[in-house]
Amino acid sequence: MAKRALIGDLEALLGAGKVLTEPEDRAAYSYDAAVVKPVLPLAVVRPETEEELGKVVAYCHRQGIPLTVRGAGTNLSGGTVPHEKGIVILTGKLDKIVELNPEDMYAVVQPGVITANFAKAVEKEGLFYPPDPGSQAVSTLGGNVAENAGGLRGLKYGVTRDYVLGLEFFSAEGDLIRTGSRTVKCVSGYNLAGLLVGSEGTLGVISRIILRLIPYPAAKKSMMALFSDLRSASETVAAIIAARVIPATLEFMDRFTIDAVERFSRAGLPGDIEAMLLIEVDGHPAQVKDEAEKVEKICRDCGALKVRVAENEEERNRVWEARRSALSALAKLRPTVVLEDATVPRSKIPEMVQAIQDIAQEYKVQIGTFGHAGDGNLHPTILTDRRNHDEWRRVEGAVEAIFEAALKLGGTLSGEHGIGIAKAPFLHKEVGRGSIEYSRRIKRALDSRNILNPGKILWLEGSGGE
Amino acid sequence: MAKRALIGDLEALLGAGKVLTEPEDRAAYSYDAAVVKPVLPLAVVRPETEEELGKVVAYCHRQGIPLTVRGAGTNLSGGTVPHEKGIVILTGKLDKIVELNPEDMYAVVQPGVITANFAKAVEKEGLFYPPDPGSQAVSTLGGNVAENAGGLRGLKYGVTRDYVLGLEFFSAEGDLIRTGSRTVKCVSGYNLAGLLVGSEGTLGVISRIILRLIPYPAAKKSMMALFSDLRSASETVAAIIAARVIPATLEFMDRFTIDAVERFSRAGLPGDIEAMLLIEVDGHPAQVKDEAEKVEKICRDCGALKVRVAENEEERNRVWEARRSALSALAKLRPTVVLEDATVPRSKIPEMVQAIQDIAQEYKVQIGTFGHAGDGNLHPTILTDRRNHDEWRRVEGAVEAIFEAALKLGGTLSGEHGIGIAKAPFLHKEVGRGSIEYSRRIKRALDSRNILNPGKILWLEGSGGE
Repeated sequence: MAKRALIGDLEALLGAGKVLTEPEDRAAYSYDAAVVKPVLPLAVVRPETEEELGKVVAYCHRQGIPLTVRGAGTNLSGGTVPHEKGIVILTGKLDKIVELNPEDMYAVVQPGVITANFAKAVEKEGLFYPPDPGSQAVSTLGGNVAENAGGLRGLKYGVTRDYVLGLEFFSAEGDLIRTGSRTVKCVSGYNLAGLLVGSEGTLGVISRIILRLIPYPAAKKSMMALFSDLRSASETVAAIIAARVIPATLEFMDRFTIDAVERFSRAGLPGDIEAMLLIEVDGHPAQVKDEAEKVEKICRDCGALKVRVAENEEERNRVWEARRSALSALAKLRPTVVLEDATVPRSKIPEMVQAIQDIAQEYKVQIGTFGHAGDGNLHPTILTDRRNHDEWRRVEGAVEAIFEAALKLGGTLSGEHGIGIAKAPFLHKEVGRGSIEYSRRIKRALDSRNILNPGKILWLEGSGGE
Repeated sequence: MAKRALIGDLEALLGAGKVLTEPEDRAAYSYDAAVVKPVLPLAVVRPETEEELGKVVAYCHRQGIPLTVRGAGTNLSGGTVPHEKGIVILTGKLDKIVELNPEDMYAVVQPGVITANFAKAVEKEGLFYPPDPGSQAVSTLGGNVAENAGGLRGLKYGVTRDYVLGLEFFSAEGDLIRTGSRTVKCVSGYNLAGLLVGSEGTLGVISRIILRLIPYPAAKKSMMALFSDLRSASETVAAIIAARVIPATLEFMDRFTIDAVERFSRAGLPGDIEAMLLIEVDGHPAQVKDEAEKVEKICRDCGALKVRVAENEEERNRVWEARRSALSALAKLRPTVVLEDATVPRSKIPEMVQAIQDIAQEYKVQIGTFGHAGDGNLHPTILTDRRNHDEWRRVEGAVEAIFEAALKLGGTLSGEHGIGIAKAPFLHKEVGRGSIEYSRRIKRALDSRNILNPGKILWLEGSGGE
């Protein structure tokens, strides 16, 4: 379809102010946070109501125009990179918390609500929405659902999937589909919300989300433990779980990352440590006290050089500052950052960290590793310069080697960043061709014209993406 | 296909000992726990390995023979009633706990493992598998996954769906599909496990399940509170949640049920009470103490006539005896029991209980109501005699009226029993035709010959089931 006609149609449908067509607008929405090739969309639209959203989807279906829905564009696997013959739909104006029900502990939201804003609104009611992806200050709940976003609290509190009670979404044809309920228990029909979660916008366009909430924990306690060797840190993680303590967060940083953080923030971290654990327990005050003491003792018993327990909110913030600045600190070192999220069963973390260090040596690339030790979700972060072709080829080799290592240890390619474009060619190594074929049958049945974020996730050698 | 040829083929495939064909065998597997018409299958097979299970599925696909997988047959919506031209596949011999990993807190099981046996095995490791459907002493984990089974702990601990990390299942063609992981975080490809959970055997035949485990709660405390009126009991439930206490179980029984229990077990319950709450809090000992005190105070403040706190395990058992015998006690009163599971947001329980009482009067039927007040999942239980045609018509009217009442209050037709055959004609009232059409497209794409438990869930007026 001619671009001019498309833009005319969209303007007629939504009003001219909601259709962005200037080169700079299209460029702004041609990429996301993954290191993949940007693609200019034909146009960008910003619907302001759920009805307008549905109209755009129906229009795209009639005309066979690919559409990519975009929240904040923080995607780390290229899932929000549009199609060259398609449009981008922004959800930023669909940002209402439709209902926040403390009595029945659920909320109904539009997809454009920002994660952290939602968490704050919920907290005011004494309630808690645990999923906290790294990008929560800007990421949207719609994006979180489409990607099944994780965060620091996966071990104790699960991921986005565990909080989605129901959805309203538009099918490829633009028909409104309802699924799920405002209740924890609902088995009325297929669990379509379960299918849509993590499907990266390839099966429907989300217009409303029903989220489960839980009581806000009454108390929290944080601590930082420093280790002179990796194995002691790993043994500490295993010993904490073996003691049946499930921290709300149990984070890990390797020496390379610690050094980068120290250079970046001068936080006063000692230079002779190989690994750091950042731990927070939460819950009933007596439980928190008990668990914090247990964890501190375990850290010391496992050989921690130093354990720093935060005694107040200010000290707690200082503990987490190091973790929060990890990615920024690493990103300062080189022009291009490739942030991976290979995940292994937590007991395999020592092997996985070792494997990553070996891979860094073998491929002669710099890798800093930090992440969620509690749930086995590590973030090996490769520092490079995409313009250096020789180095980039080695980076690609290292990434593939990291995938292989995670799978060999019984893990997964992606814990929380999605498959998108970046990992699509590798998916078959984890789930097998059968699982991809099965998924493609679903995709074809639900999106016969292949307009819903085409080319993402379902890629097969020999037949490519669809 | 001729029955004799079918049996010959199955015997050749599995060995004669694994194929049951006698009329009494076929009759034994012609019905489940729902009040629906029994259907005799052509044959019943009992595969002993996952490989044999896959072979049977592939054979059925080649020959176009409908198959219904059956665990313990405790289904309450007719989901395990076979097709008249189909076979029943029993999972009883696929009962291995393949792996129980305390370090990484997951287990891998075959579908025929009995729920309570699994819970016990897990408990020995200091771990907890919370879903506890009423039939857990005989129900299987495969059935629990296929139905997304709930139980008493939904409010605090969620339902089966919340513990399924991954699946292996056979597609309609008999190809083995793997999905999910041994980690809490996994976004590699579509969440097929999420789609399969609660799909009642219509999309695949489950051969392995990866289940998430959590630490076993260190302490528990139970109590029973008696009320002279319904509203006080309901206000108590609301006040407990408003105090941000989330009990592990928060059960309700109405007067009719209490009377039946008293007649059945002579437990010494007073005769002048209208409602009873059974409450258990669990977790850290200090938290349990605090919460039990809070709950007791709330019960008294809301006007409980009597609160009995269990001081030891024996007293705790006595508290729960009344609840455990509720269904048996009601079932003794009349020849036929229709156990419903309409669910509403918990704040709507007073309206829902009132609506059920009004419906009992209007349709002149006996209804005892008990169930999971904490998560809004009530079990209105209609006592009748199916052979009495006039009364049965009134029962059918009452059931439909209960569905309407639940939906009007923002609830769902089925919290945990499934749609199956019994509720299929009503599903569209909850999710709309669009959602059913969308689901049928998935079903058609994945089961082109419609052999996987056909006729369940997806029924539309005008076009019937598929």
